[in-house]
Amino acid sequence: MSHPLLTRIDSPADIKRLSRAELKQLAVELRDHLLQSVARTGGHLSSNLGTVELTIALHYVFDTPNDRLVWDVGHQTYPHKILTGRRDRMPTLRQLGGMSGFPRRDESEYDTFGTAHSSTSISAALGMAIGAQLRGEARKAVAIIGDGAMTAGMAFEALNNAGMPHQGRLADVLVVLNDNDMSISPPVGALNRYLARLMSGRFYAAAREGAKQVLRNAPPLFELAKKLEEHAKGLVVPATIFEEFGLNYVGPIDGHDLDSLIPTLENLRDRGGPQFLHVVTKKGYGYKLAEADPIAYHGPGKFDPAVGLAKVVPAVPAKPSFTQVFGQWLCDMAAHDTRLVAITPAMREGSGMVEFEQRYPGRYFDVGIAEQHAVTFAAGLACEGLKPVVAIYSTFLQRAYDQLIHDVAIQNLPVVFALDRAGIVGADGATHMGAFDIAFVRCIPNMSLLAPADENECRQALSAAYEQNHPVAVRYPRGTGAGVAVGTDLQTLPWGKGEVRRQSGAPSGARIAVLAFGTLLYPALQAAEGFDGTVANMRFIKPLDTELLAELACTHDALVTVEEGCVMGGAGSAVAEALAQAGVQVPLLMLGLSDQFIEHGDPAKLLALQGLDAAGIERQVRARFGGFLASASTGGTAANVKVLRG
Amino acid sequence: MSHPLLTRIDSPADIKRLSRAELKQLAVELRDHLLQSVARTGGHLSSNLGTVELTIALHYVFDTPNDRLVWDVGHQTYPHKILTGRRDRMPTLRQLGGMSGFPRRDESEYDTFGTAHSSTSISAALGMAIGAQLRGEARKAVAIIGDGAMTAGMAFEALNNAGMPHQGRLADVLVVLNDNDMSISPPVGALNRYLARLMSGRFYAAAREGAKQVLRNAPPLFELAKKLEEHAKGLVVPATIFEEFGLNYVGPIDGHDLDSLIPTLENLRDRGGPQFLHVVTKKGYGYKLAEADPIAYHGPGKFDPAVGLAKVVPAVPAKPSFTQVFGQWLCDMAAHDTRLVAITPAMREGSGMVEFEQRYPGRYFDVGIAEQHAVTFAAGLACEGLKPVVAIYSTFLQRAYDQLIHDVAIQNLPVVFALDRAGIVGADGATHMGAFDIAFVRCIPNMSLLAPADENECRQALSAAYEQNHPVAVRYPRGTGAGVAVGTDLQTLPWGKGEVRRQSGAPSGARIAVLAFGTLLYPALQAAEGFDGTVANMRFIKPLDTELLAELACTHDALVTVEEGCVMGGAGSAVAEALAQAGVQVPLLMLGLSDQFIEHGDPAKLLALQGLDAAGIERQVRARFGGFLASASTGGTAANVKVLRG
Repeated sequence: MSHPLLTRIDSPADIKRLSRAELKQLAVELRDHLLQSVARTGGHLSSNLGTVELTIALHYVFDTPNDRLVWDVGHQTYPHKILTGRRDRMPTLRQLGGMSGFPRRDESEYDTFGTAHSSTSISAALGMAIGAQLRGEARKAVAIIGDGAMTAGMAFEALNNAGMPHQGRLADVLVVLNDNDMSISPPVGALNRYLARLMSGRFYAAAREGAKQVLRNAPPLFELAKKLEEHAKGLVVPATIFEEFGLNYVGPIDGHDLDSLIPTLENLRDRGGPQFLHVVTKKGYGYKLAEADPIAYHGPGKFDPAVGLAKVVPAVPAKPSFTQVFGQWLCDMAAHDTRLVAITPAMREGSGMVEFEQRYPGRYFDVGIAEQHAVTFAAGLACEGLKPVVAIYSTFLQRAYDQLIHDVAIQNLPVVFALDRAGIVGADGATHMGAFDIAFVRCIPNMSLLAPADENECRQALSAAYEQNHPVAVRYPRGTGAGVAVGTDLQTLPWGKGEVRRQSGAPSGARIAVLAFGTLLYPALQAAEGFDGTVANMRFIKPLDTELLAELACTHDALVTVEEGCVMGGAGSAVAEALAQAGVQVPLLMLGLSDQFIEHGDPAKLLALQGLDAAGIERQVRARFGGFLASASTGGTAANVKVLRG
Repeated sequence: MSHPLLTRIDSPADIKRLSRAELKQLAVELRDHLLQSVARTGGHLSSNLGTVELTIALHYVFDTPNDRLVWDVGHQTYPHKILTGRRDRMPTLRQLGGMSGFPRRDESEYDTFGTAHSSTSISAALGMAIGAQLRGEARKAVAIIGDGAMTAGMAFEALNNAGMPHQGRLADVLVVLNDNDMSISPPVGALNRYLARLMSGRFYAAAREGAKQVLRNAPPLFELAKKLEEHAKGLVVPATIFEEFGLNYVGPIDGHDLDSLIPTLENLRDRGGPQFLHVVTKKGYGYKLAEADPIAYHGPGKFDPAVGLAKVVPAVPAKPSFTQVFGQWLCDMAAHDTRLVAITPAMREGSGMVEFEQRYPGRYFDVGIAEQHAVTFAAGLACEGLKPVVAIYSTFLQRAYDQLIHDVAIQNLPVVFALDRAGIVGADGATHMGAFDIAFVRCIPNMSLLAPADENECRQALSAAYEQNHPVAVRYPRGTGAGVAVGTDLQTLPWGKGEVRRQSGAPSGARIAVLAFGTLLYPALQAAEGFDGTVANMRFIKPLDTELLAELACTHDALVTVEEGCVMGGAGSAVAEALAQAGVQVPLLMLGLSDQFIEHGDPAKLLALQGLDAAGIERQVRARFGGFLASASTGGTAANVKVLRG
């Protein structure tokens, strides 16, 4: 398909010149461009197919970037990016040095607020709206938020403030609820059920006084909503909870119908005060395969749009990801121990819990996007003698940090945290990096923290964690590991014990011991071949194996720590603390993630850029201890090792 | 007043034997005991006076501790403690080794869940209710939560889950909303306004089908609610948002009327599924002075109940607390820079913002108990060119950790965080300790973190932070400092620079440099007199003054770091990282908070127990470097300094 209209759109100003008919044609072209583009690069698809018309309408109606669009989660912003001068950069999407898959303030003036974690948009837009008021600038702030994101407490906190006057003035903020066809994935929580009721019951909205005004140019029937009516339970609700919160509620309207969207948005734009527009869209809209299976097409890799995702199962099963290792362990431990319950904050697929849910539905809890509740709910379950396993990405545990400290750790409750995506995550970029968990978890009393080196050790680490009577987190990275065959039993790791995996044969004066925490053990082993280093698989960040550490410190001339986490406050830092406490001075090189946010890109390349592949580890060891290694045979003191005694 | 009934109550079983008339008498005695007791020890008063009848009714109706009471925030549990066998421990309240001011699982089997930070109770109670179901145990779980705590997103996340069936079963959970007389402090947010509407409009609740059943034994009129009617706006709401969330809403009822409370709770107890009881109480109820000024009597020190709090202003003004220093700086900087806006999550008094609100109401934002929203709202304001200052306790920043990383730091927005209560907080205990902020903040890229040593430096640190174009946190402790006179200008600190405050004259081989971060500079200076140490006021945790560090490391034989924060991942750890990176080996002693939760008690005593008073610092330095100090004159290598080279 050629894109005669789309290729002329270099900024929203070009959209504003189009007729309604042309806008509709633009939607067709944009959807096609999106499909072809994502099929080539991989990325988020379903959500972007669902926001094509909404994006066109918002840029048509609002004066962007002077008016602020804040896209919640932000993975649905490809149409926005294409229409705001970044069409040509789509082939670089989510690649190193390329365009981000999320809005970024440093990428475009149209990206007014960076998002990725959910449910931040209303807070940010409210800040912008009030900021504009304080500066005396006339501008609108619009938050576009999905129904899933509405379940997080943060969105509620923002709503609780958005409808209230400040100094007698109401904020000019518009919340667009992008309600994705909910019949597809099972709704979680009362809010989703409520929205479904609204969808069936609120077609009478047009008859209401406030709404009548706003909808006067919109067509009287909403085809999509009608179709959904049969799915919903059908109670007419006289006042929506959004109205109770002081926002003017309008909707639901068909989010794929520009003839509804544009006049409704125009009316809302021209009103003052907090507005709430309920828009119904369908994930994957316009691409039959994605409509039929929006979860599969949520974030596909490269594929042929004519054929769809390859359905062929490889003859030889690929090595399992850590996520799969966790999922299998969870099922096996659940079979072994009926006290096990598992909790996910809306990450069933991502956390590898599909099979567990099928086999143990009574012990499976998806609480929605609600990390805070997930952790304290687990604490409550633990109080009753159950053994909760909270499966959560490293980056999302940040959302439940206080609950981890206040509800789990202070009470020393035996909750296991399976921290997936710990370390570099790749294409999702800075917002999703699991860079900080070592630093923010190990400082908490009563907590333990394990970093298994490979798949089998991950399983053993989970079993060891489960066996404890206090809170334990097990961190493991996205994707696959070294490929070590995974056992089927529930064997544990010896608690608090690391192991030496390679012994240096270097002469005294040149003996270097590498202390690896987690999966970087393998590149560390490879690197150590180059300088004949000892390599220890430390496994435990907390409790640290101080015996092994002391032994290595006494028998080596320098130590190197390696971890896929921030150096500041990380595992290497724990080693430094233990050395200081033991009164041991030994040259120490700490390798890990540098003190900067790590951008999106191929994980292997990002690791290499951080100097954390085998070559990088060896290079850094040589850079630091090179003279040292060279002078070892003479037994002299290396120039770069400064001993301050005497 | 004698307490003939109360002295016979050693457990809830004793309450159950009382007649209704005796229960009312018990309430009178309990209220008097409470007042007398808190007047002697200090502690929370208003909230406890408000929950006397509710506590009696809950223990009368429910089978505690088999049924679980989860008290949100938990500072209103003194009546609960008195009635559950801890009457005699009231004189030890909040003191070292004494009874906690909050529920504690390790204190009593009646304290089923430890609380202190708000809004956790529904999540915990839901976990307990579902845990009981899974174990096949018949028990009820009750969350008692205030209207303020309901504004935090976490409570919403829990409500969103509480009303939904799990595997076809609804949880036997009761949420008691303890709605404190809202006319007293200005309501924040739409939810509070909504609750006020409910109070005025829902007296017709008794006529409704569901409620009729539950209220059949309750008196038809609710005196208190009637009185409130005139304050409220008076819309009759057909279905409450709590019903929309799948909970059976009953109320509002008078929370000081046992004749309402007991039959209503009995009926709710006997129903299955999620229930919601709206109870109206008055903070400070029964003590006229507290009723008139519940904020003053929220957490008073010792006082004479007959006279009330001393109103006399001391002739010589006491030295200002750090909170006051911040409040004054905020006003002064606001006068200087119109871009300044200040945000508090419901801590106007605690954060010292009363004057700021009065002088700059348009630039003051109390967002309610909503730390997550507070931080991202600030980020939105910063995007519009304003200069937000978020005043937040160290312990409550834990609630907004993800927002700090994801919305502020990744976008490198210039938001200033004024971290009050950093370090030991005293009587509030483990839940409120500001022990972790150094570890969890310094690992975040783009962030800076300052720890001023005294009042004047605190002011300068805030000015320096405000001047930056990136996010900066300034941490300072609860209470007063060394008493250094505070300037009135807006002078800043030289960025990233510490200073030497005392120079050692010790001979080579015995020179020790103490690197103090924050207010412990003063005890460190005192301690250094004992061993003739150098003392540096480091001021900056991040960026660390690595030049000063290198200089001190080169000219001293050992370093000691001192901080009022956890050692793990703390400022000492930052020093160790910097030394390792510079390739410097020097004996290092890290002093700070040990890896355990610190209990309630007198801050000075707690500091001493942690070895962080002058004597403790000197003692620990001598214990570690004693031989070292003694042998300095001989120039020999100290026995406890192990140098691994060679």
